[in-house]
Amino acid sequence: MTKKSIAIDMDDVMTDAVGRFIELYQKEFNEDLPDLRLPGRNLDNTVPPERLALVKQFPHRHDFFKDMDLQENCQEVVRQLQEKYEVYIATAAMEFEHCLTHKYNWLKQHFPFISWTHIIFCGHKNILGTDYLLDDAERNLKTFKGTPMVYTAPHNTHLTAYTRLNNWQEVADYFL
Amino acid sequence: MTKKSIAIDMDDVMTDAVGRFIELYQKEFNEDLPDLRLPGRNLDNTVPPERLALVKQFPHRHDFFKDMDLQENCQEVVRQLQEKYEVYIATAAMEFEHCLTHKYNWLKQHFPFISWTHIIFCGHKNILGTDYLLDDAERNLKTFKGTPMVYTAPHNTHLTAYTRLNNWQEVADYFL
Repeated sequence: MTKKSIAIDMDDVMTDAVGRFIELYQKEFNEDLPDLRLPGRNLDNTVPPERLALVKQFPHRHDFFKDMDLQENCQEVVRQLQEKYEVYIATAAMEFEHCLTHKYNWLKQHFPFISWTHIIFCGHKNILGTDYLLDDAERNLKTFKGTPMVYTAPHNTHLTAYTRLNNWQEVADYFL
Repeated sequence: MTKKSIAIDMDDVMTDAVGRFIELYQKEFNEDLPDLRLPGRNLDNTVPPERLALVKQFPHRHDFFKDMDLQENCQEVVRQLQEKYEVYIATAAMEFEHCLTHKYNWLKQHFPFISWTHIIFCGHKNILGTDYLLDDAERNLKTFKGTPMVYTAPHNTHLTAYTRLNNWQEVADYFL
C-alpha cells in the first residue's frame, strides 16, 4: 500500500520562530516581550504600534532564519513519522530572500535523514498535493486541499476549524 | 471560474541548461561538445566515459545555475499565460545546494512579474497539485498527478507518452 503523505511546515512548527522575534526585539529595544508567548498573542496585538512596522521587518533581516531553536521532540517524531508516511517539509521560503540558504542548512544540520527529494520551499501552499498539512498559519490551512492540521502557536489559538495538535508528542500520538 | 494552474520547470524549459553544460565542458577540456544539442543526446551517450563522472558534477559547482540563458520567447509567453492561468514555477532545486540563491535571483531578474507566492523550489514533483506540469524530465512527468506536458530537450526526444511542446511558441499555441 502506498504510504500517506504529510507536509510539515517549518516556522513555529519545527522551529521556534516566536522565540527569534522575542530575541531580536530584546536586542533592538533592550526590552523583553514575553507576552508574545501567551495564547492569542501575535505581533499586532502585542508590539507597541510605533514599533510594529520595524518588528514585522525582522524576517527580512539576513540572520533571522539562521540557527533557529528546534521545537521539543520534533526530530525524534519526524524520524518516527518517516517509517509510516512520506514526510515532506514544506515551508513558505520565497517571501524572504535571505532565508533560503539558512533554511536549507538548518534542515541539513538537524534533519540529515530527510532527503532533498522531500523538501519544498514554496510560496502559497495551495499547490501541495499531500494528504496532510501540519501548519501554524490559517492562510495555509484554509486553502489546502487535503486534511489540514493546526500546530498550536500563540497566534493561532483562536482557530477552531481544524484538528489541533499542541506539541510534537501530540503529533506522534495522532499519526503513529 | 477558477483559473487552471500550470507548474513550469526551469532547467531546459525556461533556461538553457544544456548550453551551460556545453560552456563548462569547453572550459574544462578545451573542446566543444556540440552534439549535446542533437535529438536523443544526453550526457551518458555523448560525453566520453572517462569524463562523464566529472561532467555530471557540473551542477554541483557554485556558479552552474548563475545567469543562465533564457529560452527564446519564454518571458513573453509566461506573461501571457498569467492572464489565463495560475502560473507556478516549480524547479527541483534541492538537489544542488548552491542553486537556491542563483535560481531565486534569476527569476527575480527575468520574471519580476511572477510573485514569490507562485515559486516552488522542490525535490520530487509528485507533491504538486497543479492541473498541468510543463517539464523536460521523464522522472517528473511520470509521477505527476495532473496533465503532464513534455517540453522538448535533446535528452527527451524519445518520450512518446506525453503531449509534446517543442518551443515556447508551441506552448503559447497550446494554452492560449
